[in-house]
Amino acid sequence: MLCLYSRDQTDVYLRLLHEALPEWKILAWNEGTEDAVDNDAVTHVVAWGAPPGFFARFRHLHTVFNLGAGVDALLKRDDLSASVTIVRLIDAGMARQMTEYCLYGLLHYQREMDIYRRQQLAEQWVPHDARRMSDLRIGILGLGELGSRVASDLSGMGYRVQGWARQARQIPGVACRYGEAGLDALLTEADVLFCLLPATLDTRHLLDSRRLALLPEGAAVINAGRGSLIDEEALLNRLDRDCLRFAMLDVFAVEPLPSGHRFWRHPRVLMTPHVAADTMPAEAVAQIADNLRRQAAGLPMKGRVERSRGY
Amino acid sequence: MLCLYSRDQTDVYLRLLHEALPEWKILAWNEGTEDAVDNDAVTHVVAWGAPPGFFARFRHLHTVFNLGAGVDALLKRDDLSASVTIVRLIDAGMARQMTEYCLYGLLHYQREMDIYRRQQLAEQWVPHDARRMSDLRIGILGLGELGSRVASDLSGMGYRVQGWARQARQIPGVACRYGEAGLDALLTEADVLFCLLPATLDTRHLLDSRRLALLPEGAAVINAGRGSLIDEEALLNRLDRDCLRFAMLDVFAVEPLPSGHRFWRHPRVLMTPHVAADTMPAEAVAQIADNLRRQAAGLPMKGRVERSRGY
Repeated sequence: MLCLYSRDQTDVYLRLLHEALPEWKILAWNEGTEDAVDNDAVTHVVAWGAPPGFFARFRHLHTVFNLGAGVDALLKRDDLSASVTIVRLIDAGMARQMTEYCLYGLLHYQREMDIYRRQQLAEQWVPHDARRMSDLRIGILGLGELGSRVASDLSGMGYRVQGWARQARQIPGVACRYGEAGLDALLTEADVLFCLLPATLDTRHLLDSRRLALLPEGAAVINAGRGSLIDEEALLNRLDRDCLRFAMLDVFAVEPLPSGHRFWRHPRVLMTPHVAADTMPAEAVAQIADNLRRQAAGLPMKGRVERSRGY
Repeated sequence: MLCLYSRDQTDVYLRLLHEALPEWKILAWNEGTEDAVDNDAVTHVVAWGAPPGFFARFRHLHTVFNLGAGVDALLKRDDLSASVTIVRLIDAGMARQMTEYCLYGLLHYQREMDIYRRQQLAEQWVPHDARRMSDLRIGILGLGELGSRVASDLSGMGYRVQGWARQARQIPGVACRYGEAGLDALLTEADVLFCLLPATLDTRHLLDSRRLALLPEGAAVINAGRGSLIDEEALLNRLDRDCLRFAMLDVFAVEPLPSGHRFWRHPRVLMTPHVAADTMPAEAVAQIADNLRRQAAGLPMKGRVERSRGY
């Protein structure tokens, strides 16, 4: 039996799962249906934002499909034994949204919308010469499904794009760097820096005060990966000292961002509440159905998480 | 002799003109060089923002090349006799910038950046479901060089685009409408409306209070054409009554926008100081040089203005 736990759009997911998997018994978990579910019959769970302890009740749990690309929250839980297979989504409509989000931040920088906004509030009419796309140096940290897609998309539009990943990668039109030295080199040449890495032990505070200081004067940092990638205090420090033009942040060390946090009111911070790339239900369900067929056929599933690696 | 008058980048234009037209005598007009210029020898002028009366001194003036696409200011002058040929720029790098500007406004709407901005200032963490590009209806008024390019670009990215022009046009991937009835029909179906028409007698206050009221509830208006296209009081009225989500304005009835004008501080107005599409010097000069060669060969010049039509 497959059990669905979703914080929202439960009805949509349930309908799509029924349509895609007519041979499966599928149940949506809601507060109150608790007693109606035969926990021992549940072998697979499709989940997003399940409460602590949720998974412990399923003694025969075999596979968890995460309704998102980031599995950091899932891997930290103590109610999922090491024998449970965890599968994350690969893209599922998120890459296109991520490109939109990144492109918005990029145009905000290139067309100086932050500066024109300040001028508007001060009633100042001061046109600046437009910056051409080829004058801007883009840096992208993380070249997984999302990062590599954003890198290709922006490069295809005519932007100069460098990418960085732990290991060497090849993406047409994108200058790829890797390793510690590669990271430092990329940072010194990134007018606009996109952070699209997963949250792992290796990436925690990857952007610390030393590395943030490597960015060119007046650069922008756009984080749509995970909040833990950036040392938030170090970032605030750079913003306070006007070393960076702005930070556009979709993710934070603590979410929702606590009330009173300085990001809320900082004049150089543009923030969104973790909406850069939403899961598209139809595409998510298509991936899950495909993986269930692969699993039944003894084939490797796409997006299976390696716990040691963290994604 | 060719005389250059440019409000800025005079040195850049002068160098490019010398390179492109080695056979021409070329002089840049600066305050102070006035006496050094043999006015009677000047047959051609390359101009942008020349002061009132400037052209009257050139008795043998034959052709004026306008360093921009919009010639409305030039046609209103009383120092240019009807016998002078006026040539405007066609594109010259402006179309790409216009697409960038329009795309920024579109993403601002689609990704609800105006709403997230308000939420940020109120310390509210409220994610909304992302709107897909195919859910949005785009309307573009004006299908000249700039409008048709923006229409094609946005349609190519996957947006649903309708365009409107005085006369029937055909653009692949774009549903084109024309005439009075076509305009009303387009307005009722435009979640995001782009105004990219020239300023003529026909287009003055094309968007009046009746037509603005045809837009769907919560639409956005983006004007990067000319300020005269919109009845500004009627627009403010719609914005005040929360009928429109926002207006993004690059052009105004009076420029620079007068101090104290309500647009400066309106919470639903995002404004820029006429920078949506700047002339790119190298491309502008290439067009001028090409047209001079065409003129010398007795061929029609590209971008020659028909005064009766207004562009």
